Amino acid sequence: MTSRGGRVRTSSNSLDPNEDPVSGLERVMSNSNLEQVARLRRRQEEELIFNRQIAESDRTDSHEALSARYESLNYEISENRLYREAEKKPSHQITLWQISRNRWFVCFLIGVFTGLVAAFIDIMVHYSKDIKFNWLLKYLISKCGEEQRGTTAGCMWTVMIAWIGYNCVLVTIAAILVIFVAPIAGGSGIPQIKCYLNGIAIPEVVRLKTLVSKAIGVACSVGGGLCAGKEGPMIHSGAAVGAGISQGKSYSLGIDFGLFREFRNDRERRDFVSAGAAAGVAAAFGAPIGGVLFSLEEGASFWNQNLTWRMFFSAMISSFTVNWILSWFNGRSGWLSWTGLANFGIFENKDYNIWEIPLFLLIGVIGGCLGALFNYMNTRLTEFRKKYVSSKLGRLFECLLVAAVSGFLAFLTIFAIDDCQPIGANPTATSTQINQMWCKKGEYSAVASLFFQNPEESVKSLFHSPINSFGVTTLIIFGIEYFLLTLWTFGISVPSGVFIPALLTGAAWGRLFGILVERLFPSVTGIDPGKYALAGAAAQLGGVVRMTISLTAIIMEATKDITFGLPIMLVLMVTKWVGDMFNEGLYDSHIDLAEVPILGWNPPKMSRNILADRVMRKDVVALERRERVSRIVEILRSTLHHGFPVVDRIEESPYESLPDYGRLKGYILRSQLFKLLENRIFEEEGSSNTGLPNDFYECQDDDDQMKSLTELGLTQYDESCWLDIEPYMHPHPHRVPLNTSLPFIFRLFRGLGLRYLFVVNDDNHLRGVITRKDVARFRERRRNHEYHVDELYISES
Amino acid sequence: MTSRGGRVRTSSNSLDPNEDPVSGLERVMSNSNLEQVARLRRRQEEELIFNRQIAESDRTDSHEALSARYESLNYEISENRLYREAEKKPSHQITLWQISRNRWFVCFLIGVFTGLVAAFIDIMVHYSKDIKFNWLLKYLISKCGEEQRGTTAGCMWTVMIAWIGYNCVLVTIAAILVIFVAPIAGGSGIPQIKCYLNGIAIPEVVRLKTLVSKAIGVACSVGGGLCAGKEGPMIHSGAAVGAGISQGKSYSLGIDFGLFREFRNDRERRDFVSAGAAAGVAAAFGAPIGGVLFSLEEGASFWNQNLTWRMFFSAMISSFTVNWILSWFNGRSGWLSWTGLANFGIFENKDYNIWEIPLFLLIGVIGGCLGALFNYMNTRLTEFRKKYVSSKLGRLFECLLVAAVSGFLAFLTIFAIDDCQPIGANPTATSTQINQMWCKKGEYSAVASLFFQNPEESVKSLFHSPINSFGVTTLIIFGIEYFLLTLWTFGISVPSGVFIPALLTGAAWGRLFGILVERLFPSVTGIDPGKYALAGAAAQLGGVVRMTISLTAIIMEATKDITFGLPIMLVLMVTKWVGDMFNEGLYDSHIDLAEVPILGWNPPKMSRNILADRVMRKDVVALERRERVSRIVEILRSTLHHGFPVVDRIEESPYESLPDYGRLKGYILRSQLFKLLENRIFEEEGSSNTGLPNDFYECQDDDDQMKSLTELGLTQYDESCWLDIEPYMHPHPHRVPLNTSLPFIFRLFRGLGLRYLFVVNDDNHLRGVITRKDVARFRERRRNHEYHVDELYISES
Repeated sequence: MTSRGGRVRTSSNSLDPNEDPVSGLERVMSNSNLEQVARLRRRQEEELIFNRQIAESDRTDSHEALSARYESLNYEISENRLYREAEKKPSHQITLWQISRNRWFVCFLIGVFTGLVAAFIDIMVHYSKDIKFNWLLKYLISKCGEEQRGTTAGCMWTVMIAWIGYNCVLVTIAAILVIFVAPIAGGSGIPQIKCYLNGIAIPEVVRLKTLVSKAIGVACSVGGGLCAGKEGPMIHSGAAVGAGISQGKSYSLGIDFGLFREFRNDRERRDFVSAGAAAGVAAAFGAPIGGVLFSLEEGASFWNQNLTWRMFFSAMISSFTVNWILSWFNGRSGWLSWTGLANFGIFENKDYNIWEIPLFLLIGVIGGCLGALFNYMNTRLTEFRKKYVSSKLGRLFECLLVAAVSGFLAFLTIFAIDDCQPIGANPTATSTQINQMWCKKGEYSAVASLFFQNPEESVKSLFHSPINSFGVTTLIIFGIEYFLLTLWTFGISVPSGVFIPALLTGAAWGRLFGILVERLFPSVTGIDPGKYALAGAAAQLGGVVRMTISLTAIIMEATKDITFGLPIMLVLMVTKWVGDMFNEGLYDSHIDLAEVPILGWNPPKMSRNILADRVMRKDVVALERRERVSRIVEILRSTLHHGFPVVDRIEESPYESLPDYGRLKGYILRSQLFKLLENRIFEEEGSSNTGLPNDFYECQDDDDQMKSLTELGLTQYDESCWLDIEPYMHPHPHRVPLNTSLPFIFRLFRGLGLRYLFVVNDDNHLRGVITRKDVARFRERRRNHEYHVDELYISES
Repeated sequence: MTSRGGRVRTSSNSLDPNEDPVSGLERVMSNSNLEQVARLRRRQEEELIFNRQIAESDRTDSHEALSARYESLNYEISENRLYREAEKKPSHQITLWQISRNRWFVCFLIGVFTGLVAAFIDIMVHYSKDIKFNWLLKYLISKCGEEQRGTTAGCMWTVMIAWIGYNCVLVTIAAILVIFVAPIAGGSGIPQIKCYLNGIAIPEVVRLKTLVSKAIGVACSVGGGLCAGKEGPMIHSGAAVGAGISQGKSYSLGIDFGLFREFRNDRERRDFVSAGAAAGVAAAFGAPIGGVLFSLEEGASFWNQNLTWRMFFSAMISSFTVNWILSWFNGRSGWLSWTGLANFGIFENKDYNIWEIPLFLLIGVIGGCLGALFNYMNTRLTEFRKKYVSSKLGRLFECLLVAAVSGFLAFLTIFAIDDCQPIGANPTATSTQINQMWCKKGEYSAVASLFFQNPEESVKSLFHSPINSFGVTTLIIFGIEYFLLTLWTFGISVPSGVFIPALLTGAAWGRLFGILVERLFPSVTGIDPGKYALAGAAAQLGGVVRMTISLTAIIMEATKDITFGLPIMLVLMVTKWVGDMFNEGLYDSHIDLAEVPILGWNPPKMSRNILADRVMRKDVVALERRERVSRIVEILRSTLHHGFPVVDRIEESPYESLPDYGRLKGYILRSQLFKLLENRIFEEEGSSNTGLPNDFYECQDDDDQMKSLTELGLTQYDESCWLDIEPYMHPHPHRVPLNTSLPFIFRLFRGLGLRYLFVVNDDNHLRGVITRKDVARFRERRRNHEYHVDELYISES
């Protein structure tokens, strides 16, 4: 039989100086209160469905829900007895030093590998374009001969069909990778990374198979001529590299290298993911500072100097790596002044004057409106797609359709617009065979040069070409087409970013704006439409993504220019103000569509009178500090909760449907209970506990890793044993009284990255639990110029 | 008599659903437990003195204390009933909108005024130099005639004495402003701003008189030829502007404009101060992104996107303002591409190669060592100064001595080193009469051009001059002299920054390094010593201040160059690594010397087993929810605590020297109690409470504003009344159990900016209180490669 002595000894060893003399030892738990919990749960679910029906009839908007399937990351340390005793060991000093050294080493590796992945993507895109231009088209065009536009319509058709066919093949590869291998790899990846950094466990977002699908997929979709950027996917790739390297193992491959075990928890992984995301931005734009700011602006809530510094290190190493590889690839090995992947060239004329400020403000307003329009239309389109294009084949077909239409429209535009310019008039434009084929000898088509080159190159020529390089009609048609194609492309099942397409659209209308200004004020010299193209590009992108300081830094670093910093900031600021009057940023819209319980920067306004007893969930299942294994198994089987509070006694309450819980003593994660059961850390016949691995307190809460209950193979004998939870639980979880306000709770969650917050009454008795979803469902809305707090329902899907 | 009904009504209106039925109403508080508290306090103080003696005999370092005089800012909102009811009023919606609009408006004003102050300082420095060079020296030199060096020794003496005399006059003005008007205006101001942003109320740091003394003082000390920069003081000025404008009133002048009442609390003010600091950096270096990063790296613990964006806005407006004024001042009105105050020119040759990376790493190592040496020597010097140069006259005399020695050394060096270069060999050097006077006709002295021009200009010529512009001896002597003079100057009683002097020292040895590299590898072409001067400047400054990402951004923005971003980052990173092996940054050393309870970024290592009952103070004085006025007056008179917990009952404990406190119900600030007494919000004869101003919950805790107790003029009759505290207290303060670990407490303080954290036992009974000082006194130290936690004592001075 269980020796009481052992139990008492444990109790007197307890770290809690307020050890309650009344412990629930003697009470044998019946399962009746579990049944009560289940009953209450059912009733609550019925209420939920009812409320949902009300809510649905009431709703003005169609995506006012939060999905229950997203869990929080475990950012908190379980400070249990093992954790505290680990510090007392002499080896802990060495561990501290090792951890600190390994963090830097991992950040170095993240930088190198992110750089390698980015360079790989870039080189893949280069070759796919190379095949298209130098092999496929050259062959076809040489067959057609040097005839003039229109005369060889038949031949043109062949070129076009070959072109579109090649694009479709690449896009099919990208779509198959996304649809059948890693669905999370679709789109830009920035919304997912933003949610992850916000503290939400997005399933599979940082897996190796996601990384591979993303890297190959984006090379194919960009190479396949879609209106898609490779920058967003590079950021996602960086984040996946960060997670992968820091864990020293791969779930996708099932390989465990046994490295960096100390980083195998959500907290450390999230830090490395933020470093990886920064490295991704740094690789994509040659912008290490912009990368760090991106990670901070989009994700981190707590600015930690050490973490920031490591992020910066990763970003820097990643820039170095990309520069090195590309300098080698471009035949200038070792020349590190290379300029990153998205290189927008250097402005020669850097002057601007005070009277141009109102013009920049106007560009900001236009960008804000166009960005808001883009977001509105794309959100509607995504909702439509969610409803009607949900089958795998349907999605694949849509990708092919987009690829075909993109290619077709390009050819159509070139046929329709006659914008031939003499070769050499524009030193920045490269005149290839493809853009000469529709013009007379010695001329090239400006339209074709926009459509048939890398989008980055097109941005560059819009920024730096001499004043008359592009006709007004060309810019109007190109801008509208690119706007619509980007709109359609963002959200189909291929990896595709929105940065470069938005910049390109903006550069087109910005340049148009510059030309108009030049025609309106012919007396003023020195008006460079390239400057306005830059402002327009910033405005369009800012209007779509609504980033501020990080976007400014990225654009400044990518253009290698600081002089235009001030006007760009001004444009981005006005853009954000104007855009925010209409709707939220593209990434935030997509996060809302995915029903992710993201926490914003500030608590909702007008929520002071929403108190903890309204926010919390009452259907909490608690454990005592010493429980029969059978009850634990029953609880694990009957609930899906990921963490359980531990109280000092549980009493049946005759009046309430839920048991009356005693004082809050701690909490334990589902995964920790599993590990305890798996290692059979339960007492019987006075046997002492078998040791647990030292890193038990850093227990992962990863569903994939967790065996099913039946796999544990617990016998009836096992189930009759007692489990002493106290040494393994977190002994002082965050708690608030029942009268705590929502803003206070919000700041706790946001400032500390909480997963669970327990609500206690005045006597420290457990009354409820608050999770991220409970906080996130209160949303601030503005209707008729007044702020309101809406309460979203939590959908079970 | 007091109506019990009223009391009960209040009780049933309480927001707390767990209202305790047993309240301490009937008990009339005797003052005996207060006496007990005083007795315990005395005993604790005796223990403290004893411990201190032990500690002092034990200490290896002489500044291991924290001063008790620094209080925390009130970053938390007192969510009392008034606060909650304010939201229910219809006017609250309008207030919300107004607050949001006014925040932007105030940030705009902060930008404009910070820009104006910075431009004022710059123009003042310009004119003081103008007087010196174009008036004083021209006159004297013309009197001496065009003789050669050495022949007119007597005349040289006249020039030197006049020069030194003029410098001394200016430095005297600066010193008098600091010593007699605003002592806090001395030094760079960055340590003070760092502490303020960390959440510590540094007295008078952001007052108008500090701003005026700082602005005029720094113009005088820089104009007076000290080795001092104007950038640090500009940042401090920006912070003071931020605080001043946002409060809409001035303590120094005693004027209240009645504006922006909604921002009159520590939380809002701190946000505006961070915006002001960012604007200060932006004005000083033309670096808005660097400014925002500076504010974040040095101060903010919580990255809030909205706040960051407003900081960015202020920084941008401030840059604009400075550019506009200076473009006008320099005769190119409206030409906004002006380059900020610290303009280091543009590098023509931007290439660097992979084999140069090890050289940059080496520069980083040298910078780290030199910076650590600088910090060590300056810290020792400051300790010496604190002990032996503490009188006002002594400090004034030291300032004059530094001014005289600086001037004398400059002349001495010019006499000693013969480094005459033909005029025109160095296009960046301006050859004025003063630097031609020691050389032959058609030549100028390179040494004189370093000493006798703006330090910013000297940095510029070290960066951009052709390879042979400065002799090796010149650079060595100049570097050593400047290093030592800067060391001496930083810490004397004048406003003086360390940025530009450190950059200049670093540029000197960096250029020297470049020349050595060029001589070692004569076969390699394209080695530009200017590039190494830039790296050296970054390394020296990084070694002294140990900033990373913000410094990188500042240097990149100030040099208007992004290509060298990567090497600069590398240099700064190595510098910080190397420097941190020896000691901490200059600002942190000075903060430690001032015994300020600053909280670092991470909790101390090896502190998991330090629990709340060791961290907390037990001599806590609590109130009941309803107290006699006489007891409150007694408490306010006998303690200096700035906040008091409120409990549901206080019982004399026969065994303990302290009373036994009941359940924690809330807390109230000293200033709130004062305001309640001042407004006579106490009940007698059933009279209802008179209304309080709406903003009562945003009560300031400002000692200057607070009247003394006797000024309140409370009669004996008043003191017999009862004060109902409950509606005015914060009803759900942060609380932790007794077994909470220090890292957990640390993260609460750091993440949420707490001022008070209450420690409760298992029944939610109050057992102690933790303040910032109690957390900050645990410091991580490394001895013999092992981490230890030291416990500093709290000095009462």
